[in-house]
Amino acid sequence: MAKINDNFLKLPGSYLFSTVAKKTRAYMEAHPDKKVIKMSIGDVTRPIVPAVTEAMHKAVDEMATAKGFHGYGPEQGYDFLRSKIVEKDYKARGINIAADEVFVSDGAKSDCGNIGDIFSTDNKVAVCDPVYPVYVDTNAMAGRAGDFKGERWTNLVYMPCLEENGFLPEIPKEKVDIIYLCFPNNPIGVAATKEQLKPWVDYARENGAVILYDSAYEAFISDTAVPHSIYEIEGAKECAVEFRSFSKTAGFTGTRCAYTVMPHELKIDGTELNALWNRRQCTKFNGVPYVIQKAAEAVYSEEGYKQTRESIAYYLENARIIREGLAKAGFAVYGGVNAPYIWTKTPDGLGSWEFFDKLLKNAQVVTTPGAGFGPSGEGYIRLTSFNTREATKEAIDRIQKLV
Amino acid sequence: MAKINDNFLKLPGSYLFSTVAKKTRAYMEAHPDKKVIKMSIGDVTRPIVPAVTEAMHKAVDEMATAKGFHGYGPEQGYDFLRSKIVEKDYKARGINIAADEVFVSDGAKSDCGNIGDIFSTDNKVAVCDPVYPVYVDTNAMAGRAGDFKGERWTNLVYMPCLEENGFLPEIPKEKVDIIYLCFPNNPIGVAATKEQLKPWVDYARENGAVILYDSAYEAFISDTAVPHSIYEIEGAKECAVEFRSFSKTAGFTGTRCAYTVMPHELKIDGTELNALWNRRQCTKFNGVPYVIQKAAEAVYSEEGYKQTRESIAYYLENARIIREGLAKAGFAVYGGVNAPYIWTKTPDGLGSWEFFDKLLKNAQVVTTPGAGFGPSGEGYIRLTSFNTREATKEAIDRIQKLV
Repeated sequence: MAKINDNFLKLPGSYLFSTVAKKTRAYMEAHPDKKVIKMSIGDVTRPIVPAVTEAMHKAVDEMATAKGFHGYGPEQGYDFLRSKIVEKDYKARGINIAADEVFVSDGAKSDCGNIGDIFSTDNKVAVCDPVYPVYVDTNAMAGRAGDFKGERWTNLVYMPCLEENGFLPEIPKEKVDIIYLCFPNNPIGVAATKEQLKPWVDYARENGAVILYDSAYEAFISDTAVPHSIYEIEGAKECAVEFRSFSKTAGFTGTRCAYTVMPHELKIDGTELNALWNRRQCTKFNGVPYVIQKAAEAVYSEEGYKQTRESIAYYLENARIIREGLAKAGFAVYGGVNAPYIWTKTPDGLGSWEFFDKLLKNAQVVTTPGAGFGPSGEGYIRLTSFNTREATKEAIDRIQKLV
Repeated sequence: MAKINDNFLKLPGSYLFSTVAKKTRAYMEAHPDKKVIKMSIGDVTRPIVPAVTEAMHKAVDEMATAKGFHGYGPEQGYDFLRSKIVEKDYKARGINIAADEVFVSDGAKSDCGNIGDIFSTDNKVAVCDPVYPVYVDTNAMAGRAGDFKGERWTNLVYMPCLEENGFLPEIPKEKVDIIYLCFPNNPIGVAATKEQLKPWVDYARENGAVILYDSAYEAFISDTAVPHSIYEIEGAKECAVEFRSFSKTAGFTGTRCAYTVMPHELKIDGTELNALWNRRQCTKFNGVPYVIQKAAEAVYSEEGYKQTRESIAYYLENARIIREGLAKAGFAVYGGVNAPYIWTKTPDGLGSWEFFDKLLKNAQVVTTPGAGFGPSGEGYIRLTSFNTREATKEAIDRIQKLV
């Protein structure tokens, strides 16, 4: 008789964002006259920029001709895109990455999830707390997380990110093998400097650990002291994988393109992770659509860069409005300078979900309860800067009037 | 210290198609004056049809506006596409499939590979021999295949498809839990009738086994007695997953869209595989690009259907030319009626690779050696119907002159 992967049954049933959606829907149905503003969405709202849609139209036209038609592409991505990534995202910052170290994919979520395929189930995994749920759930599915007891998985090492440590994780006391780091951070919205990242690289090199570095929000970095890539830290190529995405950089959440960097220097027992990932991708993936890769390439053109930067600036201005508006109203606010996320302490010692309910009921503003990202998120809510300017301003105005 | 998934190291190094490509390249470099014809390619060559490219242009234009912009879509696919699949691919054939049983993805290769996530590593897996390598390699990566000893994996059950059994597998004598079937078949190009499929469904139901049914080539079925879906067999919804793809149906090999059907009736120990797959996809996948899903939707329009059927007819006519041409030259040929593949017995007891070399050297025609798909493929070569009419005719002409 066929047997399922039992680890799936250990996953807690209700997912954070579906609970938020359910509560929001229930409120809206009970109060159809109220105008609800969603400051919870982690999804962009600005259209794809003209330079990119032009490139897509051109690519579609190519596909319509026998001469321009593209069938199966390389599983790793077309050279035209990989070489642009190498040149613009790395070489321009003084980082030497080879084109065959870049693997183009349909999303950082896919890569962050699928990366587990190349690792033994017998690895001790460390995650930040609060954390992007994909790192945790995919390890739980693979059997690396143990059992879920109330708030935590028994076999994961949690690294609390709290007010007292500036929301930056500390190196775990017990030995760990795989470390997920995300900077600029989701959900907290803080970034790490080179000095703050260096000890992690040193730890990984000394202990043969691998850092899985999620850099999906690097386009939001406005502080010049903040590194865009883990490879800006010396020695990181020997110990770190980097995930990047066009989702937030160019509004590709519904267009789907990302990439993962696997340096040849990164080896375990003499085996290059690059070779393992290449084999994984060649066997279980068939590349990103030609039209989409042409779209991604256009993000690097002069016009494409200028236009996508305008969208980023728009969101960062929203972030400033949220940050300053909430601070003015007396809230303790974090993040939102180098990231689209603002992490806000709940007032009067309210729980995350209590404050979520209060804001929904009294201000008709939807947020994301921090506790949903992990136990150390209790007492916080997350706001995002992805709504329109108008809605963002009104939401902050309403919250200011509430307190 | 981090540990890799050791199963990757067990995979044999050289991949069939890369060996074919290497040999071809070497020959072409040594003989730059010779015109080589590739009858080995499993990739389509005809352009995307106008109805589909029009839909893509429209979708790109939508994405360029704030109102028409689409961010994250449902991980399972948009309703507009899932409902078309249900209506045109199933309801039209008298099969009742619900929209939430359809999971849209970036490729049947991805789904065939990723499906292993929801199954225990402790399952006995049966595969046809010869076989599409993805089924084997992904199980090897997951640790279900045991060790590779010369030609076979120690823990897989091989089901030989030979001339004496009409190239149809027989139900294994030992108990198996997961069975991969592919009809119309790759690489052999034969199809199975309802009567031939029924014993498999009966076996699976009686033994609690799961059939993973790859139906990627169903669009090539020209014989009305041949079922397009495993669900045409009574009881199949309780025991079978079906993989479908737009790759060969609509020339989407470089456009990337497919889907997998997970009926609610399909349960193991009371757990719906549908729920597990849904969780898997929501955690490790973020949906297919909006533009691509609109392209796939257009395949089902009146014009889209008519135009894509013309491409299929073109390839099937190539298949006829290959089949009849080789038979006329005295070869034993199989497949190519309900599939784009033609399976040809090598003459004079030559090995697959010997005959491959001979055809390359003396006729400048590239084929795929059957032995590369599994030990029972020895003594055969595979030809595909995806080249142009002109090249196909010339290739067959050259082979006819050779013998």
